[in-house]
Amino acid sequence: MYIEKINSPKDLKQLPIEQLSVVADEIRTGVLNRVSHHGGHVGPNLGFTEATVALHYVFNAPEDKFVFDISHQSYPHKMLTGRAKGFLDVNDMDAISGYSSPLENPEYDNFEIGHTSTSVALATGLMKGRDILGGTENVIAVIGDGSLSGGEAFEGLDTAAELGTNIIVIVNDNEMSIAENHGGLYKNLQLLRDTKGQAELNFFKALGFDYTYVEEGNDVAKLVEAFQKVKDIDHPIVVHIHTEKGHGYTPATTNKEAWHWHMPFELETGQVKGGHGGEDYGDLLGQLLLDEMKRDPKLVAIAAAVPAAMGFTPERRKAAGKQYIDVGIAEEEAVAMASAMAKRGAHPVFSTPATFLQRTYDQLSQDLAVNGNPAVINVLGSSVYGMNDFTHICFFDIPMFSHIPNLVYLAPTTYEEFVAMELWAIRQEKYSVAVRVPAMQVVHSAEAYDTDYSNLNKFKVAKRGERVAIIAAGDFYQKGEAVQQALANDGIDATLINPRYLTGIDEDLLEDLKKDHTLIATLEDGSLDGGFGERIARFYGPSDMKVLNFGVKKALYDRYDVNELLRDNNLLDEQIVASIKATL
Amino acid sequence: MYIEKINSPKDLKQLPIEQLSVVADEIRTGVLNRVSHHGGHVGPNLGFTEATVALHYVFNAPEDKFVFDISHQSYPHKMLTGRAKGFLDVNDMDAISGYSSPLENPEYDNFEIGHTSTSVALATGLMKGRDILGGTENVIAVIGDGSLSGGEAFEGLDTAAELGTNIIVIVNDNEMSIAENHGGLYKNLQLLRDTKGQAELNFFKALGFDYTYVEEGNDVAKLVEAFQKVKDIDHPIVVHIHTEKGHGYTPATTNKEAWHWHMPFELETGQVKGGHGGEDYGDLLGQLLLDEMKRDPKLVAIAAAVPAAMGFTPERRKAAGKQYIDVGIAEEEAVAMASAMAKRGAHPVFSTPATFLQRTYDQLSQDLAVNGNPAVINVLGSSVYGMNDFTHICFFDIPMFSHIPNLVYLAPTTYEEFVAMELWAIRQEKYSVAVRVPAMQVVHSAEAYDTDYSNLNKFKVAKRGERVAIIAAGDFYQKGEAVQQALANDGIDATLINPRYLTGIDEDLLEDLKKDHTLIATLEDGSLDGGFGERIARFYGPSDMKVLNFGVKKALYDRYDVNELLRDNNLLDEQIVASIKATL
Repeated sequence: MYIEKINSPKDLKQLPIEQLSVVADEIRTGVLNRVSHHGGHVGPNLGFTEATVALHYVFNAPEDKFVFDISHQSYPHKMLTGRAKGFLDVNDMDAISGYSSPLENPEYDNFEIGHTSTSVALATGLMKGRDILGGTENVIAVIGDGSLSGGEAFEGLDTAAELGTNIIVIVNDNEMSIAENHGGLYKNLQLLRDTKGQAELNFFKALGFDYTYVEEGNDVAKLVEAFQKVKDIDHPIVVHIHTEKGHGYTPATTNKEAWHWHMPFELETGQVKGGHGGEDYGDLLGQLLLDEMKRDPKLVAIAAAVPAAMGFTPERRKAAGKQYIDVGIAEEEAVAMASAMAKRGAHPVFSTPATFLQRTYDQLSQDLAVNGNPAVINVLGSSVYGMNDFTHICFFDIPMFSHIPNLVYLAPTTYEEFVAMELWAIRQEKYSVAVRVPAMQVVHSAEAYDTDYSNLNKFKVAKRGERVAIIAAGDFYQKGEAVQQALANDGIDATLINPRYLTGIDEDLLEDLKKDHTLIATLEDGSLDGGFGERIARFYGPSDMKVLNFGVKKALYDRYDVNELLRDNNLLDEQIVASIKATL
Repeated sequence: MYIEKINSPKDLKQLPIEQLSVVADEIRTGVLNRVSHHGGHVGPNLGFTEATVALHYVFNAPEDKFVFDISHQSYPHKMLTGRAKGFLDVNDMDAISGYSSPLENPEYDNFEIGHTSTSVALATGLMKGRDILGGTENVIAVIGDGSLSGGEAFEGLDTAAELGTNIIVIVNDNEMSIAENHGGLYKNLQLLRDTKGQAELNFFKALGFDYTYVEEGNDVAKLVEAFQKVKDIDHPIVVHIHTEKGHGYTPATTNKEAWHWHMPFELETGQVKGGHGGEDYGDLLGQLLLDEMKRDPKLVAIAAAVPAAMGFTPERRKAAGKQYIDVGIAEEEAVAMASAMAKRGAHPVFSTPATFLQRTYDQLSQDLAVNGNPAVINVLGSSVYGMNDFTHICFFDIPMFSHIPNLVYLAPTTYEEFVAMELWAIRQEKYSVAVRVPAMQVVHSAEAYDTDYSNLNKFKVAKRGERVAIIAAGDFYQKGEAVQQALANDGIDATLINPRYLTGIDEDLLEDLKKDHTLIATLEDGSLDGGFGERIARFYGPSDMKVLNFGVKKALYDRYDVNELLRDNNLLDEQIVASIKATL
């Protein structure tokens, strides 16, 4: 195989152009080998294989700079830059991340990237840096059609065009986002494809870009030709290439949404290996919303390009009809829209993973909470048990949400409490409410939960004991139960509290605990800095009450083993028990 | 005057169309009366006066819904919806805010708005809400050309076009942002103006909008005609109107940037009344950056449409040349660009008010801090002494920044310490650094400040005492000195500490304080929830040390009197002293 001998793009350049499609096929095989064993992004990488070979054949990395949007299409790039073993050899797969990473390869990867719509914006910095330092290299930003719907991509394009110097934006148009595309822009991309790039009405030209179109986006020779024409160009240009998502693997071209990202699978059949089985909160949320829609014609479920995360399969989207809307990768829009929809009297529910909600801090504050409109935001995956890639950590949501005035952030502890809180949030018309949808295994309970949460910040005492009180929020409530039980086994009759609210504290209860408690332990499934526990520590600061906050220390985390993470953060049940006993 | 008898748009509709320009002139006089006495946005309101009269003449508010971007052009709207007295009578001016506000007028103002680029996104929610509820009203979003550079505006337009139902987007094109426009888009607006809207290449059409152009954007009759044509339209349309910023007031049309927002002034001459005098940090920052640029050709100062906030007057922008860049109202782009510019070896410094940095939480986390690129972010105005409008509060920056891993946030206490920290931040190449530029009166000090801040989280002990330690951050350090002095007068020899870092704590020092201190008081010029002090409270939680956190309680604040705010939050020097003594 060629690919085994390609240690850098220089080796690729030695090959005759006719052999490049062979290399592309080898890369495709390597990508499939990796994802079938390891899971990962399938469609984006398969569709961008030929383009990557052509890019590295034409341009001179690392002098020329590539920036990959989301970088979920960067596997072929990794294989051509000394990391093929991470695809070919199952034993080497863990060494390679699913994203662009200078930590992994400082020579060829320019940025740690995992969020969407950033590539052009980052590329403008490389442009301006080059220009101010007198460099001459090409700056190449790769962006998928789906990512163009994000505001940061627009801001980047707008600035790049004004800078006016060399930048080559490769628009990888596979006619898909994660699910289908949404936004007026996509009709223009359709027009450009239909006219082979000849239409006068052209979004990119309207922003000031030069423009060229390549219909055969999975044809290496055609791509090489196109890239050679734009290499060393002295102004901004978009190279719009039409690719096929999942190219070369029938299951992935047949069901593009399901194969955007995939669990490990049998290569022959595409069948998932093992399968996770059991209930999951995404699916349960989808069903809950769909059921409530039937009852409430004002309910509108909003997705921002990841409907699957909220259980909205294509079938459910169809069933929801007009009561479902996907705004594309446009979280800012989603929050603003939700706020205004609530203002108009509808019942909007926007659901997306916590890491992507980071895009909406200002909208949560300004468009939503300052206005106090009764929209619902479901925060998904927010747990140490959630996604664990460097750029996809989902446990900074409590620090981000909880200090925003006029927002109510609820943390259910079980499925039944989640349902109670979610339905209250949807049906009430008084507060802007976020719900931290649990992200661990689904836990059921026969406990009677409140159906009304409008009496804000009223904590629930599950068990009243003495000396020690454990305040265990959301996902970590079961950990609180376990710790309470362990202490009971050691003769310590601890109080156990479900705080329910992350945006305020129950001062009356906390005051009352002073009577017969000397230590409070807070447990939260997330960041300690700026988290829920610190608010409790502040409350008791002037008193004799001791406080232990359990949560995750501030640090960068990447592909951690969750049990190691828990241990390193003193979060194993026995560690918590030991800390409590040592402090008593 | 007509305007005195117009209590609602219904009264306006009774007038013959020929009299509308008289009403517009009266409104202009009212706007000038208000801003000359009270300060406020001048150019945006004067330029949009005729359009507002025409909008209210043609459409039927409150059934038809207006959404004003930033809403700094909503004064004429206020005058036509029962609030003219707040413009005509100097005694009534304080009752009226400078922005759209349902709290002020729930009937005609749909949203509390103060940030840019939100109007179309909010309007999409009104559209979808109307459509799901079976309404038939018009939704009218007003947006200035400058605001189009923000990503949220793009996301809103993209979604609105796909929704496909009635929305009328009024693009108020006065050929200006706050300063001059920046971005490739603006060449397209120029082309559209030059061709009277006839050019095939049309940004709005590329997004799927219908489109019409009105050259005479300050001619009420022409505007009425144009609006009548689009009223009750069944699909999205942009009405691109060409207006003159500051129309009808010569000082404001002569120097548009200076008259975007203006302090109280003499109506005849345009001269500022009184004037604030003395040094200010914006000006000092601008001079510092310009001086450093001369020494360091790699330094690039980045603005996001508010160069004046960082002291970059037109003269300084010219002097900086290529070492200055304004990305438009595109804070996400600015942070991503800064990160990548640093990656490429330049020395980027992005400066903007804290309230607008709220747009960049994800970019600070992902594009910048995860990558650890040595860019500098100057956080401006972050103080209770900063802007005090509902939507412009600048004191949530510590909660927003301080829990982001891998970011260094510095809080200088005096001008000289600011210079030391800023120059270190620019010249070092190791950390992503944010600097909380002081926002109170400029304080000078002859103290010797460190020139190297790479030994992270090392607090500085200004005075070592016993029993009580005051840790006073940034702007509130002088308050710490005053409290320390007051305690000394009462025989309490307190320790005084300048923490310098907001992103970490000096555990060795805090541990050491346990030896001879029983109480720690933290002072910060910002939000208590998620703030700096809570981290100290958490540290001491398991110990016998008592902790008092002084800062601002979580709440919505609007046009407060700063002394009342301080009193309400127990932040007056004597209150702090009393609390400390009571807790000892």
